[in-house]
Amino acid sequence: MVGTTLSADEKKKLITRNLQETLGDDKLTKILQERDLKIYWGTATTGKPHVAYFVPMSKIADFLKAGCEVTILFADLHAYLDNMKAPWPLLELRTKYYEQVIKAMLRSIDVPLDKLKFVKGSDYQLSKEYTLDVYKLSSLVTIHDAKKAGAEVVKQVEFPLLSCLLYPGLQGLDEEYLKVDAQFGGVDQRKIFTFSEKYLPQLGYEKRIHFMNPMVPGLAGGKMSSSEEDSKIDLLDSPANVKKKLKKAFCEPGNIADNGLLSFVKHVLFSLFKEGEGFEINRAADNGGDITFYQYSELEQYYADNKLHPGDLKASVEKYINRLLDPIRKTFEEPELKKLTAAAYPPPAKVKGNAAPAAAGSEEDGPHRLDIRVGKVIEVALHPDADTLYVLKIDLAEAQPRTIISGLVKFVTVEELDQRLVAVLCNLKPSKMRGILSEGMVLCTSK
Amino acid sequence: MVGTTLSADEKKKLITRNLQETLGDDKLTKILQERDLKIYWGTATTGKPHVAYFVPMSKIADFLKAGCEVTILFADLHAYLDNMKAPWPLLELRTKYYEQVIKAMLRSIDVPLDKLKFVKGSDYQLSKEYTLDVYKLSSLVTIHDAKKAGAEVVKQVEFPLLSCLLYPGLQGLDEEYLKVDAQFGGVDQRKIFTFSEKYLPQLGYEKRIHFMNPMVPGLAGGKMSSSEEDSKIDLLDSPANVKKKLKKAFCEPGNIADNGLLSFVKHVLFSLFKEGEGFEINRAADNGGDITFYQYSELEQYYADNKLHPGDLKASVEKYINRLLDPIRKTFEEPELKKLTAAAYPPPAKVKGNAAPAAAGSEEDGPHRLDIRVGKVIEVALHPDADTLYVLKIDLAEAQPRTIISGLVKFVTVEELDQRLVAVLCNLKPSKMRGILSEGMVLCTSK
Repeated sequence: MVGTTLSADEKKKLITRNLQETLGDDKLTKILQERDLKIYWGTATTGKPHVAYFVPMSKIADFLKAGCEVTILFADLHAYLDNMKAPWPLLELRTKYYEQVIKAMLRSIDVPLDKLKFVKGSDYQLSKEYTLDVYKLSSLVTIHDAKKAGAEVVKQVEFPLLSCLLYPGLQGLDEEYLKVDAQFGGVDQRKIFTFSEKYLPQLGYEKRIHFMNPMVPGLAGGKMSSSEEDSKIDLLDSPANVKKKLKKAFCEPGNIADNGLLSFVKHVLFSLFKEGEGFEINRAADNGGDITFYQYSELEQYYADNKLHPGDLKASVEKYINRLLDPIRKTFEEPELKKLTAAAYPPPAKVKGNAAPAAAGSEEDGPHRLDIRVGKVIEVALHPDADTLYVLKIDLAEAQPRTIISGLVKFVTVEELDQRLVAVLCNLKPSKMRGILSEGMVLCTSK
Repeated sequence: MVGTTLSADEKKKLITRNLQETLGDDKLTKILQERDLKIYWGTATTGKPHVAYFVPMSKIADFLKAGCEVTILFADLHAYLDNMKAPWPLLELRTKYYEQVIKAMLRSIDVPLDKLKFVKGSDYQLSKEYTLDVYKLSSLVTIHDAKKAGAEVVKQVEFPLLSCLLYPGLQGLDEEYLKVDAQFGGVDQRKIFTFSEKYLPQLGYEKRIHFMNPMVPGLAGGKMSSSEEDSKIDLLDSPANVKKKLKKAFCEPGNIADNGLLSFVKHVLFSLFKEGEGFEINRAADNGGDITFYQYSELEQYYADNKLHPGDLKASVEKYINRLLDPIRKTFEEPELKKLTAAAYPPPAKVKGNAAPAAAGSEEDGPHRLDIRVGKVIEVALHPDADTLYVLKIDLAEAQPRTIISGLVKFVTVEELDQRLVAVLCNLKPSKMRGILSEGMVLCTSK
């Protein structure tokens, strides 16, 4: 192992590079002087892992290179608690899928799997000891604190479910039950991490170290979530699909601040490059010819200076993504894994033709999917290109008002909308839900 | 058994007599036509059971007479969740004490124990299946609904603990796991019962029948809670103590509405009387001489008409209470049970003399006991009989403002208090907490 030949200092550098924040730096230094670190990363087994999962995987590669003992937790109970998005039998299949696809990802980036442990949450989170600790914790934690801890991770709805308050405690207890020194996650987990640091000691357990990755924008811009179908590149997408999705990706010339492609290059590709490897751009001589960057910062500056055309960046990233996905696609050509994929993520029920099996469809549709909120219209304008559409700005008590395109011109006047409270459907899947909406409802089809 | 000779109708009458409300009457009728009813009553193993526990015990006697199979649940996990009033090791002793004392109570009122089952909550509430159901439920129930369900039973504080939200779900699931048809409790459990009726079917379990006793005022007036030390008659109190406590009991001449003694006679004594037995009053010939009532309603009318002196009522109730307590006291003379009692409820640490063991005292005192809330002074007046005292009306966002006597005259003016927000200590035990309060805090010594 590489890890054994590195000094404590070098290990620490590898462990913390590209992180946005570390809580417990002193403790990290101390442990590394004595032994290798034990660390866990958890993922709820819900939607299909997509290409952005390479971001935490690249950090896990760093941890392993630094000699860490890494546990990957498949949080199936959390997945279940999260609004019961997936029923239990499906969840078991999805956990298997996660294990297979994450192993394939790690193999694709040359990570040896023998230093990795895979654990399923439901294997220990339903034990007597763990459950008693959940209850003990619930007798120490106020509703207020539990709500605060989950605020950034749990979907905010008007009537949140009780399960949302249980998450943070479970995630804290996992640190104890997985016997790790540290937990790794996105910086959106910060409140859960500090919650754990506050409450574990009150149960007589040690406070853990916390490593936080920055929030890396998805390739289409914005945080890449596995539940937003359109923006993500699936790990099993064909090269043609990768091309199509990258074509749609937001990639403004010269804009380095909100650029999912550059973020991917920085957090995934550059952290995976071996000594002497660089990011290669192949382009026509007319556009400047081939060029290779050995430091991410140089590439960033080059792009900021408008010397690199978005199309050329996209073409290069496409090449690297396909290089990452090729071995995964190949692994998933095995009939066993094809079967698993189809069973874990059954295609949505078809509408035309014979009645599709109800089970798969019922998971997708139904009134429980409607996230209806009340917001205030703070701006109404006619759409510049369509005279049946309004462009509304609606305050939903979020950080930013939402811009919503609405076909209400025929039905209500500007005055009837301006400064009014309206019902907004915040998670519309246009093709599915429209039929059940009553006329005149303001629809939110965009973020 | 008596139960076997009764008709379904007679059984139903016995089961429901003296109840304030039954939810699921149709189902009760239907089951009784087919077989005997299975029912459970739960009690959290916290404070020492006192004489008011004869009220539910009398109903349990009814249930048994009607052939029911009765389960008594010692809710030790609930007791633990309830603000962790008692630590676990103490809780185990208390559960043993509860079992012994409740058995002694039932023997004292001639209830055969062989049709009774005693179950400890922690024996099944930490199982994998149960725990998974708790999580499933938490993914169906909104925080709002869980809060509402516990509103009357859980102590209302500004920052309630997460555990308060778990109670109602656990109590509902107990119905399923104890395999009963019905749950029995005080009418203060109503919201928990309707919560269970709403959510059990969503888990695929049957909706249960719910029997509710009226809230019977304690002998000292008001709901008799085991945590209000002064008002309650302990099951092991000496005859002298019983006399002393009854002497202090609120018992207004002619007042039948708020009269703990009459309630006790109605709900306990009359329901225990056998055919031909009546409530005997022994009094001097000058006061009307001896008299026996065979119907509670007659006694009530007699008292309402001011024909019975409170002192004579008290003397009679005292005699009956001692008759009920005698066999319990005798049972608890056994050295084993004496030892158990002392261990389960260690006397509060003594303040004078040598330092008392810290463990017992620490359970009683400490900042966690302080229920400090912010309220608004809505009225200030000088106390009519004491010129160092204000009489304050303080709005604590409760149904009624609280009237608080405060010795602040020397420190602040009326203007400095009127319409101001003040910190109010809502659970002051004057003898214990005063020392740790800072000067100028408004103290609430009365309800």
